[in-house]
Amino acid sequence: MEKDIRIIFGKRLKMIRLSQNISQEELAFRSGLHRTYISSVERGERNISLANIAKLAKALKTEPYILLRGKD
Amino acid sequence: MEKDIRIIFGKRLKMIRLSQNISQEELAFRSGLHRTYISSVERGERNISLANIAKLAKALKTEPYILLRGKD
Repeated sequence: MEKDIRIIFGKRLKMIRLSQNISQEELAFRSGLHRTYISSVERGERNISLANIAKLAKALKTEPYILLRGKD
Repeated sequence: MEKDIRIIFGKRLKMIRLSQNISQEELAFRSGLHRTYISSVERGERNISLANIAKLAKALKTEPYILLRGKD
């Protein structure tokens, strides 16, 4: 279960990032997070916290809950 | 911003918990988290991570993203 939510989050993050034609480097710059961290989050390896979810959502001009939804 | 998302999450968690007539103790038992931790999350004091969000959502028979939405 815990692994699942990380995978779902990572896939959603990557999908939304790519839909906006934004590179991991650009998302890192906008969010203030490190590129390798973002790469790791997208692979579902990180137990990311609310504060960083909010930073990524803001950088992608979306709402935090959108990044947690498993489907549209 | 980081504070906001904690407050939103905490309020949603409490609202959904109360709507199901579940005490903090019962939610703690169901989720495997400590009651004082849940109390702190509901007050918006915790930068809760994905894994614990998933535990709380499962204990409340809802989806993780529901706990992050600021409104219905």
